[in-house]
Parts: sequence; structure tokens; C-alpha cells
Amino acid sequence: MSLQSIIDDIAAEVAPLVGQGKVADYIPALACVDPCQFGMAIYTKDGQIYQTGDAQTSFSIQSISKVLGLTLAIDHHGRQLWTRVGLEPSGDPFNSLVQLEFERGVPRNPLINAGAILVADTLLEAYDEPLEQLLSFIEQQTGSEPTIDSDVAESEKATGFRNEAMASLMKSFGNLQHPVDQVLDVYFKQCSIVSTCVQLAQTFGFLACDGCQPVSGHQVVTSRRARRINALMLTCGTYDRAGEFAFEVGLPAKSGVGGGIVAIVPNQMAICAWSPALGESGNSVAATEALRLFTQRTGLSIF
Amino acid sequence: MSLQSIIDDIAAEVAPLVGQGKVADYIPALACVDPCQFGMAIYTKDGQIYQTGDAQTSFSIQSISKVLGLTLAIDHHGRQLWTRVGLEPSGDPFNSLVQLEFERGVPRNPLINAGAILVADTLLEAYDEPLEQLLSFIEQQTGSEPTIDSDVAESEKATGFRNEAMASLMKSFGNLQHPVDQVLDVYFKQCSIVSTCVQLAQTFGFLACDGCQPVSGHQVVTSRRARRINALMLTCGTYDRAGEFAFEVGLPAKSGVGGGIVAIVPNQMAICAWSPALGESGNSVAATEALRLFTQRTGLSIF
Amino acid sequence: MSLQSIIDDIAAEVAPLVGQGKVADYIPALACVDPCQFGMAIYTKDGQIYQTGDAQTSFSIQSISKVLGLTLAIDHHGRQLWTRVGLEPSGDPFNSLVQLEFERGVPRNPLINAGAILVADTLLEAYDEPLEQLLSFIEQQTGSEPTIDSDVAESEKATGFRNEAMASLMKSFGNLQHPVDQVLDVYFKQCSIVSTCVQLAQTFGFLACDGCQPVSGHQVVTSRRARRINALMLTCGTYDRAGEFAFEVGLPAKSGVGGGIVAIVPNQMAICAWSPALGESGNSVAATEALRLFTQRTGLSIF
Amino acid sequence: MSLQSIIDDIAAEVAPLVGQGKVADYIPALACVDPCQFGMAIYTKDGQIYQTGDAQTSFSIQSISKVLGLTLAIDHHGRQLWTRVGLEPSGDPFNSLVQLEFERGVPRNPLINAGAILVADTLLEAYDEPLEQLLSFIEQQTGSEPTIDSDVAESEKATGFRNEAMASLMKSFGNLQHPVDQVLDVYFKQCSIVSTCVQLAQTFGFLACDGCQPVSGHQVVTSRRARRINALMLTCGTYDRAGEFAFEVGLPAKSGVGGGIVAIVPNQMAICAWSPALGESGNSVAATEALRLFTQRTGLSIF
Repeated sequence: MSLQSIIDDIAAEVAPLVGQGKVADYIPALACVDPCQFGMAIYTKDGQIYQTGDAQTSFSIQSISKVLGLTLAIDHHGRQLWTRVGLEPSGDPFNSLVQLEFERGVPRNPLINAGAILVADTLLEAYDEPLEQLLSFIEQQTGSEPTIDSDVAESEKATGFRNEAMASLMKSFGNLQHPVDQVLDVYFKQCSIVSTCVQLAQTFGFLACDGCQPVSGHQVVTSRRARRINALMLTCGTYDRAGEFAFEVGLPAKSGVGGGIVAIVPNQMAICAWSPALGESGNSVAATEALRLFTQRTGLSIF
Repeated sequence: MSLQSIIDDIAAEVAPLVGQGKVADYIPALACVDPCQFGMAIYTKDGQIYQTGDAQTSFSIQSISKVLGLTLAIDHHGRQLWTRVGLEPSGDPFNSLVQLEFERGVPRNPLINAGAILVADTLLEAYDEPLEQLLSFIEQQTGSEPTIDSDVAESEKATGFRNEAMASLMKSFGNLQHPVDQVLDVYFKQCSIVSTCVQLAQTFGFLACDGCQPVSGHQVVTSRRARRINALMLTCGTYDRAGEFAFEVGLPAKSGVGGGIVAIVPNQMAICAWSPALGESGNSVAATEALRLFTQRTGLSIF
Repeated sequence: MSLQSIIDDIAAEVAPLVGQGKVADYIPALACVDPCQFGMAIYTKDGQIYQTGDAQTSFSIQSISKVLGLTLAIDHHGRQLWTRVGLEPSGDPFNSLVQLEFERGVPRNPLINAGAILVADTLLEAYDEPLEQLLSFIEQQTGSEPTIDSDVAESEKATGFRNEAMASLMKSFGNLQHPVDQVLDVYFKQCSIVSTCVQLAQTFGFLACDGCQPVSGHQVVTSRRARRINALMLTCGTYDRAGEFAFEVGLPAKSGVGGGIVAIVPNQMAICAWSPALGESGNSVAATEALRLFTQRTGLSIF
Repeated sequence: MSLQSIIDDIAAEVAPLVGQGKVADYIPALACVDPCQFGMAIYTKDGQIYQTGDAQTSFSIQSISKVLGLTLAIDHHGRQLWTRVGLEPSGDPFNSLVQLEFERGVPRNPLINAGAILVADTLLEAYDEPLEQLLSFIEQQTGSEPTIDSDVAESEKATGFRNEAMASLMKSFGNLQHPVDQVLDVYFKQCSIVSTCVQLAQTFGFLACDGCQPVSGHQVVTSRRARRINALMLTCGTYDRAGEFAFEVGLPAKSGVGGGIVAIVPNQMAICAWSPALGESGNSVAATEALRLFTQRTGLSIF
């Protein structure tokens, strides 16, 4: 059975779930997204694209951007990064300050909010224009220039008091080098990047190819780093449901409250599924189920 | 034995402790205070002043200002205040974010940092110029106009990331009405008020007289509110050592990292002891011991 | 107005509250107590007894026994006791394991469950028959021999898994000297002592007389220790409502889930109020209100 | 390069690390193990055994037994199991009571102590003689009857107060069906099974073959369950270092304080490495490094 047939079947099968759950509503720009959309795209090692449903519709990538930030930060700082951010699952809801305080301002991992804010701080050390760097990274992988939804970015800033609290706490422990406002500006803007399933599958193709861009073979990060990013996504990529996601889906993945989830089948393909309505854990209901069906059908779980 | 002899004896007895501990050093303006100072003053119900040592030397009142803020807030908001801040000892170090997060942005009590920041927010609702109100309150009790050490206020702001974190967290829970910066401006400035042992004993005389100013008899707060402020000081006034302080000293009290401690003997007198060097808990070593000796000698513990 | 009139008035006034709340129902022997009972007794410094309502009805003293255990332990171990148990309010619900783990098996104070279990362990060091000692202590103060409700003791044991958990945890940190079962046997039995308002007011008379038994003048504990026990009751005696209780009532007190509350007016009298139905905090609704009215009417708050 | 050469090389390479760290010393029977031992064995999908060093020396399997208990429990209870134990990484040290209390007696996952105790309780429901069942399971996979080190079991019981605390806490929340003593008896004994690297690699061969025993093809658990057990090992199998282990080694694995680590290369082989001296996290230093070198050399990381 072809990949195209498989994802078309999955799209049909998850249709009853599409719209189930709740669209992120903490900012207006996200709350008004039509929940009844679903898209899925696959980008294979040899450069093939498969897509179904709303795979070319733009959405807010939100926390998926954390993997991008992490990729640039690892590439620049190497092992030094791990003196300022941990490698362990958080075991707590994704925005908890408790752990951050107990662990003296060192975030558990780079894929929770606090960790991604810390990573943004390291990007300000590494690059003059970290946001340009992130956008240009996506453009290199997809061939098209992504945009930032400035309404979303503004709203994030206007309501992001908890992120401010975490940044201030890290600053109080001396783990943030730049002013809180400057770091959060990078963070809120990277979360506000808009993209599509097809573009995101392309963007993360290097994680399915030992760090190389499919087709061009350009080495984006070393093979070892690509594997490590995948390991982090597996253990920390889906908020406080990483265990269940590994158990049910069995792929490294990163979700965002915009409803997108990027998943990696090492050595084979990058996948992006998207549907805006979220379950309690903050992961898209229909996109999670689509990925679960995918590994069930194809046997491509890494386990 | 007269009160004057008692406090003179105490001053002699604590002399070996003066300078023991560590002056607060998180901001330069506090770090450079000479630790080898000690003062003590008593203001009795009938308006007598007793003083010993450096009782007329100015120091930064710091957290003692929390009782002033609380007094004005209770006076204006009454019972409504307790929907936004609790009445219970914190059981944790005085600046913990953990509890604030678990308890959804409602600080444990108005005498820890988070609670005093919340109180500052309520003062912004109550008064056009809350800081003027605080200064004028002191002036009414002492007859002289207090000052604010603007160096201290600036330094507090420049390093107060943890207070920023708490304010942002309360804001994220919707428990702060005004912008974080505006609230912190009041808070940092009230902490930077400078005063002396004599003035502070006078300022808090109303808490030793059922809410009335000694001598003039002016009703500052109702009798019931005065008792409640005393109760809060007993259970929450000395950071995470309130239990030990009640156990060893046995008086309602509020300490500050400037080294001052105000204590109340209900229906009799207000006391202020001061010495800059602090113990591990953030309370002045010599001032605590002076108050312990005072209740031991006079039998004036409330227990 | 005489004390007798005051407590009769209070009994009339709290009548509508009697039965409001919920009788402790975790064990059958407590669950079947008639909630519509209320009693109050006062024992003054000069040996007068005042009583109203069901002041001579027997009830399970439960956590009030913690003050008895503490009294014997302080008397035997002195300051050494405070190396194994703290002096600070817990800031958390009364049976929390969290704090006990963070603080490495040292309970916050002797009036929470963990602390009272630790105290029971120290009594096993101090006395061959600690339970006999506790009973005989009560007999010395009241002139009559108290009993233990063995049904209650058995039920406590059969359902006390959380207390077992705390004892095991303290044992794991090396802070318990005797086998868990033996310590819990003392603890569960002391909680199962039955007594009346009149007897309990008599039992705790020494805390209102600088450590001396009223009338006889027998020194039960030193004056300093009596004050310290009062201080502990004020800051830690009413579960996680100690702040509110100090604020509303203003007396050192210890409550039990049997519905009794003992309160002390230093240098004047011991009071016991009782009504079985409890509020959310585990303190009797009607007994708390009776004590609140008492200090409001008499002005006898310590603040 | 052959697997045999690879593991021989690894044994040579980790030799300087063997003995580094600290042998588990909380019970005498473990403390007296010679730290300077190292063994490694591989059992492939087609039934080949490769071994090096002390691969046939017996050691205490300790927490590795949790995977055995889990396998039997999943096999008997299916999805029902997940109503009583979670699937998420704990994010806290492996024996924390804090999380267990916050989450109302439901352990985070079956591979931490609390979870394995809960699993033991479910085995008592499922089987008349759960321990016999566990031993017979191993015998079926290895052809030889394992033994239990009764000295170790006795010592575990005599010092296992923290495990008692966790069991009592789960009992207090109603999540344990059998008496604490009975459950802990199973748990302590299963931890005290002794085995060798070769036998453990054989025992867990089914996890490398979609749930089937290599060679015989006997279906031990369904393919889906085998994958899920692997997913749990990846996210939760190495105490609070699961993230780092995934990051550095990249294989599902379960470690024990006896110094053994079992790892699975899905669809290819089960591996057991063993060396008694542990790092801070409770995982064997040399065995962890051996597995890290293995995936580095072979490229067999699942990521």
C-alpha cells in the first residue's frame, strides 16, 4: 500500500475526530482558527512529498519552533548548551515554575517553555539577528520564505506573563544573559512563525536523514546531533504526555498549540500532521490520532 | 527595674553579637552599611520614648514597610482584601514561587514578598499616589517626614528579577490589576524608605493601643484590625522563622533585611530593635536576641 | 457580665451552626457521633470551672492529645527534642508527606501528624509505658482516670496507611528509633483517649498558669516551656488554618477531628469548646465560632 | 566487524571505568560485591549469543525485574493496568513520594519503585503465586531455573522503609488491593532474583522480536505490547536520567542498582551489560558507557 493511500485513509479515518477538543484560546488570533481542518504531509529521505487534506494551509507553528531554536543553538554552542539547560523530561505541566525554582533556574529541557526561552537567550549570543537566522533556516530547507504573524506575536507578548515570570526567575538565578524583554521578543516571534504541513515536513527532513538535507545532501547538523535532537523530541516533545505519545505512537515528535505535530521516522521520513483542536495535554487530538494510525499501519514505530 | 535600665542592659549584653551574621549584600547600597551598629527604642502607650545605642540612626526599613502597606490596604479594602491574599504562614522561604504557583497566584499572606506586591497593587486602586500616602502615614505618626533612598530603590529594581517573576505570575493568574512595572515601582520604593528605631517605634504605636495613636488617641485603624495585624505579624512576620520567633520571643513582629525588627506588646508598647547583620533566615541576629532578652526579663511575652 | 453568662450566650448564639459541617467519617466509630452536640468549659487560674451545654459529654480527643505528648516530651528531652522536630508552621495540609520528604524526615512541628508520631517515638525512649504516662498525666490534672476507646484505636490502625507512610519515611531517614508498629501503637492509642470539655479544660490549666497546676500550684513544666507550648499552639495548632485562627480568634489553641478545641488565655484560663461537625480545614465549625465570639466579647485575644 | 569483536573492543575500552563509581551499599549483601567486574552479552533475533568478560557471573537483577513484572501484568490485565499506574517519566528521583502524593497514589509509571510495587499488587490479583510465575517466565526464556538471593530479600525488607512508605501511601489512596506486607514481599523477592548477562539477554529477547521468543517463535506478548514496553523503557527505564540515556545511548533500557542494564535494539537483539559500580543516578557507570559505545560503533541507536 502506498504512503499516499495510507495518509488518505488516515485522513478519512480521523475525520470524526477533527474539531474534537478545544482550539487554543488564550490569544484572539489563535482562538478564531476554524477547528474543522486537518492536514498531513510526509517528506521522505529521497525527497518525495506526500500530502492530504489541508496540508498547504498556513498555521501558527508555536512550540514546534523550539526544535528550530534548539537546532541552531546546538549547532553553535555544542556541548556547552547543556550546562544551562537539562536533558530530562519535566514530569510536570509544560509551563511549571515549580521545577524551575527547585532546579535553580536551569530548565529541565529545551523543549519546554522555560528551556526554549533559555535557548533564545543563547541564540542572542550566537547571532546578531537570531530571528532572521531562524527564518533563513526554514527558507533553506523549504525554498520559500516564511512569515511571522505579528498579531500573534503581539498577543503573545501582551498575555505572556507566565513566560515573563519564568524568564525573570532564570534571570534571578543568573542563567539568562540578555534582558528579559529582548529574550522574550525572540521567543514570542519564533512561536508566531506561520507555516504549512508540507513546509514543516520539509524543514525537519534533516532529522530523518542523519542530519543531512534530503536530496541536496547538505549537512545541516552532524549525524550525532540529529539523533540527539530526535531523542529529546521522544522524551520531551509532547508536553507532559511524552510517555503516552511514545507508548501510543512511538516516534520522536514535537507538538504546538497551533495544532501541528512534527514527527520523525529516523532514516526514512519527516511527517507533519495538523488539526487545530487540542486535547487536555495541549496536543492536537486528530493529529495525534493520525500519527498513531500511521505507525500502526506502517509498523514504523521506532520500538 | 526601669525600661531604660532594661534596654541599656540588653544593649550591653548583645554587644558581642553585634556584627555577627551577614549584612544583606544583594544590592550595593545595603552591602556597605557598617554592621557594627545596634539601636533599640520603645514607644509606650502613654507616649514615653525609651532609647539606647544607635536608636536615631537611619536605616533602610525594607520589609517592615509591608506592615504599613497592609495597614493602608486593610483600612481601605476591609475584608475584600482577603479574597486576593491569604492569612496563612508560608512554610517556605520568603520569596518562593512554588507556593504561589500551586495556589494559583494568591499569595499566602501579605507579609511575604508576593503578598506585599499584591498589596501594592491594591494600594494603586485605593489611592492616586500610594507612595505619598505611605510617607504621609509615617509623618502623621512621627511628626517628621521620612525619605526614600533612591539609590536603594534603583538597585532593588535593577536586581529584583525574582519579584518580577512573582508579579508576572500573579498577573498571569489575573490577580494583579495594574501593570507589573507600576506595581513594582511602588513596592521597591516603599522598601527603600529610611527611618530610625525611634521613628519606627512611634510609627507602629497604634498597634500597641487598640488601633489608636498613643497620646493623641487618634483612631488609626479599628481595634479589631489592629489585633489582626498583630496576629499576622506573629504568624507570618519573620520570614520562615515565625514559629521559632514566636517560640523564643513571643511577640508579634516584622523584620526587614535592613536589620530592623518592629515588635508589639499589645496594650503596652511598640519596640524597634536594629542591627544590620543578618542570620540565615534574614532576620537580624542581634536585634532578635535583644527582643528575646526583653521578653525574658520583662515577662511581656504574649504567651 | 460573668463568664457563665458569656458562655451561655455564646452557646445560644452558635446553636444555628451546631451540626453544620461534616463529622469525621474516615472511621466508623467517629462517623456515628451525633453532630448536634455542643459543649464549652472554662477552667480559671484560681480553679473555677464554668460550663455550658454538653460540657460533660465524652468525645474522642484525637489531635488534642498531641499537646499532651509534646508536654511530656519537652519535659523529658528539653532542647534535644528540637533536633528531631521543627518549630515552624507547616503551610501545607496537616498530613502532607511532601514537606516531610523535602525536609529529610524532620517534621515541621510537633502538632502535625508526622511530628506527633516523632514525639511518640521520643516518649518510647523516655518512658517504659508512654501511654500509661499520658493517662496518668491527665488523671493528675483532673482527678479522674481517662479511658481509651479501643474501637477507635483499632479503626485508626486499620485505616492509618498515611500515618504509616509518614512513619516509614521518617524511619527511612533514620529519625525514628523504634519500630514503626510500636510507635504507631502509642500514637493511635493516644488519639483514641476520650474526655470531656470540663476535663480537657482542667488538663490544660497549667498552660494558663505559667506551667503550674491551678489551685495546687504544682509545677507541671517550667514557665518558659509553658509559654513555648502556647506559642507552638498559636502558630501550628489548627492544621493549615493557624493563621486564620490567630487572626479571627487570637488565642493559642489545638483542635482535633473529634470536634474539640482547647484554647489558652495566658495567665487567666484554659477553655475547651466541642462540637463534632468539622469545616473543610478539619476544625469544628461551631467550636471555632464559639471561641471567636469569646475573644470578641471578652477582649481576651492575646493580640 | 563482527558483534563479537565489537563487544570485545568495548570491554577493553571501558576497562579503565570498571570500578569507578560506588557499589550500592544500602544493604550488606550488595555492598560486598567486587566492583571490578564487567560483563556484556547479546542475544540476537536469530538466537545467536555473543558474550564478553564476566557475562556468566551471577548478580542481583534488582530493578530490571520491574520489566518482568510489567510484562506479566500487561499480559494479564491489558489496558486496565493503566487506570492504576501512569505512563509518564517521573521527572524526579526514582523513589520520590512527593509526586505520588500529588497524584493521589497513582505512580507515574511502572518502572519506578512505586509503580513496580503497584504492579506487584496487580500480580497478586492475577496469579496465585506471582513469584513462581516470574521465575517460571525466566526459565521459559533461558532454559534454566533462576534463584532468589534470600539474604538480599531479607535485607531489602529490613531497610525498605521508603518502599513501605510508598506502599502505605498508595494503600491510603485505595490504589493497593492487598496488604502492604504481602505486596512488598513479592516486590522485595523479585528484586532479589540473581541472574547473569547471558540469561538476561535471553530473558528479554522477546522485546527485540515483536514479542516472540527468538528461535522458538513463541509469542510471549503481542507485538504491540512489546513495542509499548520498549517505549516505557526508553522514557522511564533509567531513573531520573532517562533523557540523558536516550540522548547518549539511544536504546530502550532498564537498569538496576545491582549494576546491570538491559537494552533492546528493536527487531535485532537484546543486550545486557553489567558492572557493579554506580554513578550518581544509580546507573552502572561502565555498563552505561559500554552501551553508549555500542550504539556509537554500530549506528544501532533507534534515533
